[in-house]
Amino acid sequence: MPIARGTNALTQPLVISVDAMGGDHGPSVVVPACAQALAALPASARFLLHGDEAAVRSEAQRCRLPLDRVDVRHTDKVIAMDEKPAQAMRRGKGSSMWNTVEAIREGEAVAAVSAGNTGALWAISKLILRMRAELERPALVASMPHAKGITTFLDVGANVDCDAERLVEFAIMGEAYHRAAHGVARPTVGLLNVGSEEMKGHEEVREAHRVLREGGIDLNYKGFVEGDDITKGSVDVIVTDGFTGNVALKAMEGAARFMFSELRDALSRDWMARLGAVLARPSLRKFRDRMSPPPAAPLLGLNGLVLKCHGGADARDFAKSIRAAADLAQSGFASEIERNMRRLPAALADAGPASADGAA
Amino acid sequence: MPIARGTNALTQPLVISVDAMGGDHGPSVVVPACAQALAALPASARFLLHGDEAAVRSEAQRCRLPLDRVDVRHTDKVIAMDEKPAQAMRRGKGSSMWNTVEAIREGEAVAAVSAGNTGALWAISKLILRMRAELERPALVASMPHAKGITTFLDVGANVDCDAERLVEFAIMGEAYHRAAHGVARPTVGLLNVGSEEMKGHEEVREAHRVLREGGIDLNYKGFVEGDDITKGSVDVIVTDGFTGNVALKAMEGAARFMFSELRDALSRDWMARLGAVLARPSLRKFRDRMSPPPAAPLLGLNGLVLKCHGGADARDFAKSIRAAADLAQSGFASEIERNMRRLPAALADAGPASADGAA
Repeated sequence: MPIARGTNALTQPLVISVDAMGGDHGPSVVVPACAQALAALPASARFLLHGDEAAVRSEAQRCRLPLDRVDVRHTDKVIAMDEKPAQAMRRGKGSSMWNTVEAIREGEAVAAVSAGNTGALWAISKLILRMRAELERPALVASMPHAKGITTFLDVGANVDCDAERLVEFAIMGEAYHRAAHGVARPTVGLLNVGSEEMKGHEEVREAHRVLREGGIDLNYKGFVEGDDITKGSVDVIVTDGFTGNVALKAMEGAARFMFSELRDALSRDWMARLGAVLARPSLRKFRDRMSPPPAAPLLGLNGLVLKCHGGADARDFAKSIRAAADLAQSGFASEIERNMRRLPAALADAGPASADGAA
Repeated sequence: MPIARGTNALTQPLVISVDAMGGDHGPSVVVPACAQALAALPASARFLLHGDEAAVRSEAQRCRLPLDRVDVRHTDKVIAMDEKPAQAMRRGKGSSMWNTVEAIREGEAVAAVSAGNTGALWAISKLILRMRAELERPALVASMPHAKGITTFLDVGANVDCDAERLVEFAIMGEAYHRAAHGVARPTVGLLNVGSEEMKGHEEVREAHRVLREGGIDLNYKGFVEGDDITKGSVDVIVTDGFTGNVALKAMEGAARFMFSELRDALSRDWMARLGAVLARPSLRKFRDRMSPPPAAPLLGLNGLVLKCHGGADARDFAKSIRAAADLAQSGFASEIERNMRRLPAALADAGPASADGAA
């Protein structure tokens, strides 16, 4: 897909490439979300909207999407939510997800957003944009609410086996992302470990600890943290391998869902509880909103900016994701990552070979 | 410590050995807890209570502990809550925790309960009771509430690096424990893994999956589960390594604490919310109780029954822990573990070497 193609207006800075077909609801959520997001973004913002043109245009009419700021790019090919990543890579070319990501490589857009199949988005993004040399797969970030803000938690699902170098890379990327997304000048960074003194962590974790502490990487590294620090706000960025991160994230999401469901039951148990719930409703609603994590997460480590929005997102969630993509695209986080990544080889050498006393 | 020593009444079946000095509060919590527990246990139940005799007797008088059913064993040596396990092993002999566990080996008691330093309790229990041949360290179990009951989740902290054999042992022990603790005739078992198809788990997890599925071990094995299954009740027993389990447990505990704190804030925001909270209070209290996991967990894999109660326990929690110890001691779970453990070597051989297609 050539850059020109009569879309010169779209080569202006803030162009977001959007997968109209991704997620559980496709255009019926994505198109209204685009309308909401456009209203909140600067007048120069434009969207590329990839998917079934008829469906998109019909939704666009319904929700009054200003089509002068949107370039609809038709394709009738869609990656299914349950498609295997390997299959998506083989037969995904020309699909709405593929075209959404390809617009980044072609320089047509500065960020891509999809609520489609996570594994497929990883695989396709990696194939089209390629990873930065040092990294094998994109890392997935979770933003966890705590009393005073957000903890950036990664990797929550991409890289199951992580050596020390991988963990340090996550620290570098997570720190730059946290600054860009939350405006914290010098985010603090912690490495996830277990509590008992007797058996402080894997060898990989102890080695990463040593590199972060001694290796001359420019991070505000605070040492080991534990699982409950994720919602305590002890540090801004918490780093772990993709296995542990994925399990911890899902465990916390499950615990929160369970608690909300039990709370709902408790508040409808008898007339007193029901009346109480009615009176407390505005406060309870604010409470629920505070507990909801941001709907989108970037895939870190790609040569380009791709955000994954969760599949069940509604229009408000998807609009938030588009705005998050715009914020990130306008920040300097890619170059900050670049700067610290260049220090990594020296840092690994400096920290030297594993010693018996790696723990804090 | 010889079995006789004038304590013949204590060689009756249900004798529980209790560390009076463990936990954040020591005798001021443990002694009243013993009084509560004795009231609920059969008349034949007796306690050995290890610790500072003067402090114990003064508390006993205050809370009217029936001293004819309790043998107070004096020691003025106590393991500190922050003592390193290695140090506890070296200088722990004769401490209240040490004597509590030693009573099991001496055949004076059928179960031991302590709210003391977890690492020290592991180390001392392992030293005194020794592990079953196949196991290296005791596994720690968490009991997670879900809508219809309890999920048994292990290992949550002892064994950081686990090979497939270790994971299968956890499955065997967790299943027998779940049956004994919750009266489920044939508990279902799942192995914790990550969600993305593309990268289903570590090699160890895939190998354990193969052994559990094909190896002729007598378990109701259901395959892989994910982090959110812990609070869904998808299976009765969820198995993972001690690193992942510890992080997931603490992450969930942290998330629950954070939610309760935010909920408290939400319900005191304005007069409507406060009035609502007052009306809903009885229901909210039941909700909180449902969310609280059992206060004690067994250390599995020892030649003997040792329960760790959480350090911050109040008298009600500690009394519950003593009753849980009594229930377990009267169940057949030790022999059920024995039976399946004997099948393990053959099962490992049967499942054969790793194949490329280990995942479900």
